[in-house]
Amino acid sequence: MALIEPRTLKGFRDFLPAAMIPREQLMETARRVYRRYGFVPIDTPALEYLEVLTGKGSDETDRQMYHFTDNGGRAVGMRFDLTVPLARFAAQHIHELGTPFKRYHIGSVWRGETPQAGRFREFVQCDFDTIGTNGVVSDIETALVIHELMHEIGVRRFTIRINNRHVLTGLLEQLDLQNAGTAVLRALDKIEKVGVEQVSKELASAGLSAIQTDRVLALAAMHGSTSDILSQLDKLLVGSQVGQQGVARLRTLCGAMTAAGVKDEFFQLDVSIARGLDYYTGVVFETVLGDLPSIGSVCSGGRYDNLAGLYTKLHLPGIGASLGLDRLLAAMEQLDLIPKSFSAADVFIPLFDADRINDYFQLASIIRTAGWSAEVYPEPKKLGLQLKYADQRGFRVALIAGSQELDAGEVQIKNLTNKVSTTVQWRSDPDALVSALKNMLDLGDKIA
Amino acid sequence: MALIEPRTLKGFRDFLPAAMIPREQLMETARRVYRRYGFVPIDTPALEYLEVLTGKGSDETDRQMYHFTDNGGRAVGMRFDLTVPLARFAAQHIHELGTPFKRYHIGSVWRGETPQAGRFREFVQCDFDTIGTNGVVSDIETALVIHELMHEIGVRRFTIRINNRHVLTGLLEQLDLQNAGTAVLRALDKIEKVGVEQVSKELASAGLSAIQTDRVLALAAMHGSTSDILSQLDKLLVGSQVGQQGVARLRTLCGAMTAAGVKDEFFQLDVSIARGLDYYTGVVFETVLGDLPSIGSVCSGGRYDNLAGLYTKLHLPGIGASLGLDRLLAAMEQLDLIPKSFSAADVFIPLFDADRINDYFQLASIIRTAGWSAEVYPEPKKLGLQLKYADQRGFRVALIAGSQELDAGEVQIKNLTNKVSTTVQWRSDPDALVSALKNMLDLGDKIA
Repeated sequence: MALIEPRTLKGFRDFLPAAMIPREQLMETARRVYRRYGFVPIDTPALEYLEVLTGKGSDETDRQMYHFTDNGGRAVGMRFDLTVPLARFAAQHIHELGTPFKRYHIGSVWRGETPQAGRFREFVQCDFDTIGTNGVVSDIETALVIHELMHEIGVRRFTIRINNRHVLTGLLEQLDLQNAGTAVLRALDKIEKVGVEQVSKELASAGLSAIQTDRVLALAAMHGSTSDILSQLDKLLVGSQVGQQGVARLRTLCGAMTAAGVKDEFFQLDVSIARGLDYYTGVVFETVLGDLPSIGSVCSGGRYDNLAGLYTKLHLPGIGASLGLDRLLAAMEQLDLIPKSFSAADVFIPLFDADRINDYFQLASIIRTAGWSAEVYPEPKKLGLQLKYADQRGFRVALIAGSQELDAGEVQIKNLTNKVSTTVQWRSDPDALVSALKNMLDLGDKIA
Repeated sequence: MALIEPRTLKGFRDFLPAAMIPREQLMETARRVYRRYGFVPIDTPALEYLEVLTGKGSDETDRQMYHFTDNGGRAVGMRFDLTVPLARFAAQHIHELGTPFKRYHIGSVWRGETPQAGRFREFVQCDFDTIGTNGVVSDIETALVIHELMHEIGVRRFTIRINNRHVLTGLLEQLDLQNAGTAVLRALDKIEKVGVEQVSKELASAGLSAIQTDRVLALAAMHGSTSDILSQLDKLLVGSQVGQQGVARLRTLCGAMTAAGVKDEFFQLDVSIARGLDYYTGVVFETVLGDLPSIGSVCSGGRYDNLAGLYTKLHLPGIGASLGLDRLLAAMEQLDLIPKSFSAADVFIPLFDADRINDYFQLASIIRTAGWSAEVYPEPKKLGLQLKYADQRGFRVALIAGSQELDAGEVQIKNLTNKVSTTVQWRSDPDALVSALKNMLDLGDKIA
């Protein structure tokens, strides 16, 4: 019979252990932080009725969606984000759940877009949202979750950039540019990439006067401490009610972040953040890495007025953000923040003498009861080959014993990093083995 | 605009927090146990080339598979289990990974089967496998993982039923029934359900003599301690090489399980386990719950000779098992092993005075730094309404403070279970708050 070629689809990929271990750790960290703030998990199906998914989609997402007719003749699609399913879910269950409802959702989504560097057709989203409240407390909580996520993941240098749609609306009002909003947002968004000169040309061709263009560019150039920027905004927004509301929310947000212990270096007001401002209706967040800003925002989100209007007459305002798992992992790889080895276990036990399996499993049992992980090699190969396997997998310690040692109740503990060995009497004194391992294993970094 | 009806597809379901929290905990427990034995995680795409998926499928799985033509004209399908993707994955990557390779894989699979009680079209599998070795060490490790999984999940009464394909082959040889193997396996499998009488009729109509039928039924009735059964098998299999090999492997397996500390009550040799024996080629496992045997096996698996023969000429023997997440959760629900509340957080902080947000976030920060989770209510509603929310979510403690208390640096700690309150000076002495909470929170069961 001819072999079937083992291959994955274009734009899809396997995760080998070396990639999957840090990926799983990142998801676990996200879950832990989300829970610490009272968010609870939900899950929704990968497949939904096509009409549910296309309801909110742009032409682009519709084109990218995987969709087909199932065996029951239903038009179905694979979810392309976790926001549309959340909207459908909220419309369906919010009476049972009550508000405010705080959920997190970690799951795969699919988009048939053209694969390119770092873009795949299947990827994981890690979203958290608070639904059913306009309270500024949720703005604050969202910012604190982002801040804590970054710390717990191990990122030491990052900035949460914060803007507010109302502030920008107010500023556009003051400049008499309400109708050029989209052009101005797009231009602001591009400044870092294409530079001031190019953007001022675009603003001019969008119909802005020279004075208007200068003022828009002045907004983007606004820098300084949080309180500096808030004072500048106060002055610029005199007379704009909506703008002042926005500034007031930002002031409360920044004050509470400081009160909760967030250092100034980790957040920054930035009126030039425009991405998503045609979607969001209040505060907006982006998170850039100090050591790799070019990779873009690794955690973005903001406040929206009405989540589920396509599915229910209930008005459900909310706020949320999404951790960019794949982007963050790519960054961590570049910054060398990911451990190299792919073992999940601490202690390796070679099968030195095939007749003494019971002894090896007794040893392993002591290790696991003490809280470490252990693996017995499954075949009685030459010790050198077995230790090579242990080395490749990143084990840190081996417990070596032949029949003579086992008869004497002994085992040799070998530190696989520095090759230092010590022998202990484990059968008469299992605690001696645990103590010796404790010394050895707590010295280095724990891998998993 | 007409509203779109918010609904899920037939056979699919949403997981609300009350269902998702225990589900997530179960998956975390599985990951922790798998890792403790040196298994490492992988992931594979939800979508694969149709030819990859159908290669090994029966007509039934082919019919149940979700498949379609993607925008690039490729025939694709959604994975219907994690075994076929593992075979494809192993064929593709085993040179890079090396053997033995021990992986676990937790992921959704899809089957368009007719939905019925407890059967869904989307469900999660939790598989672990050891590939590239025939060593009995892996048989033992697999059994120990199943045993530890059950304990860590909190199941107190269960039995791992163990059989071996070689033993059954040997017994069929001894009875001169090699060619009636399938009929005998099917009959054995049904005994518990339909009874001895019905099964003996079926065996007769399959062509077995009265003596042969009696002997087959005697096998199924074989009971006693592990060593009793092993001795009986020794006698029955005199002269059958393959049968004796099977018994030897079972003897080693059971001996090592005992050496590793597994109590006799948790495993049992059972020659009547036939399910999957046309697929497996060595040891076979099933796990039944002592308090709910009718729900069937919650963790099954076994040894196979050649995993990936459809995709590679490499011979890859292996052994694995799969935790039946949905079945186990259904059982735990019936046995009342799942906590009722759906909060993930410990401490609730009502927004008593909207002007004191900073104070509430300072309090929350102290709680989280001490390792608990905390949530600030997002709106300044009446205290009664806020506490009702806390009650519904299963919070155990509330920290209540108005402006007067906050000015005095005080907060009232309220145990929401027994309604007892105490007041502490948190601002001058944050440790006092932590100690008081420690007393309160460590009293009850931790929920998440």
